[in-house]
Amino acid sequence: MKRVLVAIEPGSTSALVDAVERGGGSIASPGEADALVWTDPRSPEQLKALLRECPASWVQLPFAGIEAFFAAGAIEPGRTWTCAKGIYGHSTAEHALALMLMAARRLHVHAAASSWVSATFGAPERRLAEQTVVIVGTGGIGSELAAMLAPLGPRVIGVNRSGRPLVGAERTVEVSALLDVLPEAGFVVLAAALTKETSGLFSSSAFGAMKSDAWLVNVARGGLVDTPALVDALRDGEIAGAALDVTDPEPLPEGHPLWALPNAVITPHVGNTWDMALPELTALVERNVARFRSAAELEGLVDAATGY
Amino acid sequence: MKRVLVAIEPGSTSALVDAVERGGGSIASPGEADALVWTDPRSPEQLKALLRECPASWVQLPFAGIEAFFAAGAIEPGRTWTCAKGIYGHSTAEHALALMLMAARRLHVHAAASSWVSATFGAPERRLAEQTVVIVGTGGIGSELAAMLAPLGPRVIGVNRSGRPLVGAERTVEVSALLDVLPEAGFVVLAAALTKETSGLFSSSAFGAMKSDAWLVNVARGGLVDTPALVDALRDGEIAGAALDVTDPEPLPEGHPLWALPNAVITPHVGNTWDMALPELTALVERNVARFRSAAELEGLVDAATGY
Repeated sequence: MKRVLVAIEPGSTSALVDAVERGGGSIASPGEADALVWTDPRSPEQLKALLRECPASWVQLPFAGIEAFFAAGAIEPGRTWTCAKGIYGHSTAEHALALMLMAARRLHVHAAASSWVSATFGAPERRLAEQTVVIVGTGGIGSELAAMLAPLGPRVIGVNRSGRPLVGAERTVEVSALLDVLPEAGFVVLAAALTKETSGLFSSSAFGAMKSDAWLVNVARGGLVDTPALVDALRDGEIAGAALDVTDPEPLPEGHPLWALPNAVITPHVGNTWDMALPELTALVERNVARFRSAAELEGLVDAATGY
Repeated sequence: MKRVLVAIEPGSTSALVDAVERGGGSIASPGEADALVWTDPRSPEQLKALLRECPASWVQLPFAGIEAFFAAGAIEPGRTWTCAKGIYGHSTAEHALALMLMAARRLHVHAAASSWVSATFGAPERRLAEQTVVIVGTGGIGSELAAMLAPLGPRVIGVNRSGRPLVGAERTVEVSALLDVLPEAGFVVLAAALTKETSGLFSSSAFGAMKSDAWLVNVARGGLVDTPALVDALRDGEIAGAALDVTDPEPLPEGHPLWALPNAVITPHVGNTWDMALPELTALVERNVARFRSAAELEGLVDAATGY
């Protein structure tokens, strides 16, 4: 079997080079490449420019959220496109679990305290076993999260486009029934791709449907949430709190009202850092290079119809 | 079968009364009781005084840590004693998991931030999948924690008195080998009873054996840790941090050095609050009253030899 010529642009690392070579590829310049691994999540225009001079029939995007590449028209239909959907689910789900437990156990409050405050009865801390968790999006993140929640014992309800059952959920409903299940949730976790259909999915009507003691956890994309409506909901006590690893706009600018709200906790998109991702990504690249060589179906094929 | 006369002292709740009655008991005064449920964890002397006038052959203590009752000589050998060991494991293990994830994802740092700080490479957040967790104490808390960690993927090492395997652990060692396994840990979780043997178990030699990027998590008893030695270890960077739901002294007094250390996070003994405990406790009381009636072995028998 001939070796596959793979370009890694605009920047590479030895770990990616090793992965390509373990998969049976050889590093090549873009002008002669059979395949391209594109490493910068923020530069669809630069990718479009490079592709004009690049014969690669397959392009691997090493991130899960590729809406910016669709928006820029970079996902040319004449080539095969793969992304990293699914493989970062475990790490990002762990971050969602961390944020849920932080909120339930009020760690953000306790961490800032400088004296011992406890209540014998009526303490506000909660355990997940008594909660209902609504998981919106049942791909890599959502399914890993459901597995992580199982030993903790909450009731889980899944929400997705098709209603296809989320393993570990009591039931799974179509997104059209979102407002029907939100009133049950102590925690709502956003784990969906950002598409035309999901953009701004959480607006005032969603917050209005949630319980006043419920938390919103977003580890997916900031654009799933109508941020001004969220600020209002947090200020008015319509919901109890929000833990956000992603924001809109992102990075969240200094002075944004969310920074000042005591019931909003922001983490700077660290659900799946580059360091956490690299082992998963290099394993995917190795597998896909090997599959490409043997003309097998690639993992993580981008679906132009759904946008992810 | 005759009904069992059960006294609930020094204070009762309707939930406990219901539990006794569901188990086949009738509420009685201490002077005529066959059994006593003692509800105040901080009053062994008061219990001793009451027992002089109480014929109960069985005493249920509704807490897991009963070292204060042993120390006061309240655990009279002529009666059968049960405590709540084991049944609060799930709730307390969840708190340990919350504290571990907080530390790994640096939520205590992010929650206090008012601007977006992120690093593309070399971000300090960690995921548990890459970590080794040493669990000291493999009873109710330790075994529940191991089950909760399983889907997250860290390597687990158990430590206990006997070396009896902890389910879910790669291996379990006797406490005499503690210093041998500590250098492997990214997280050390204390989940052991406080006894003569475990008092001050974590002193300077233990901290010296831990990695400089390791966290100590204590959800069991403050007395397991030599607090001045912990303060030194945190100040000197000998270990990365400590997340403590229990302290020595407890409550931790205002102005104590731990409050001022940025790498010490204190929660005020909320691993298992009264509200979280009540469903588990009432279920235990119901089961034990029924067992007492039918002369079956009671759950949670206190072992005078080990002290818990």
